[in-house]
Amino acid sequence: MDKLSYEVLEHLAVLSTSPKGWTKELNLVSWNERPAKFDIREWSPDHSKMGKGVTLSNEEMTALKKQLLEIEL
Amino acid sequence: MDKLSYEVLEHLAVLSTSPKGWTKELNLVSWNERPAKFDIREWSPDHSKMGKGVTLSNEEMTALKKQLLEIEL
Repeated sequence: MDKLSYEVLEHLAVLSTSPKGWTKELNLVSWNERPAKFDIREWSPDHSKMGKGVTLSNEEMTALKKQLLEIEL
Repeated sequence: MDKLSYEVLEHLAVLSTSPKGWTKELNLVSWNERPAKFDIREWSPDHSKMGKGVTLSNEEMTALKKQLLEIEL
């Protein structure tokens, strides 16, 4: 993997916790010092390791929110 | 990668489209014939290739929706 820097600017929500303590989280993350994006990803208990995930721009998150409002959950 | 089968059961929303035509989508996907989960992921224009993404259970999506309702977007 290329060199990658990131900073979790804001922890918004813990969506779930696995038996081993990894958490799936919604955060605001700045990658490589770029402006923050929404990020849904699994993290190790001390946040030193990350799993696969997706980043979402404001526009993408707005589209996601709009769709979720139409789904019964 | 291990053998992986999947079926997109329902296309719920296209969140964005890249200049090369890849789309970031919210879908209901069944992985390895297990029950469907929500899935946020990038797909090639003909859906033959997938990018990284996250799957979310009903409970995780409910937690995400709850948080999004508290965010101005």
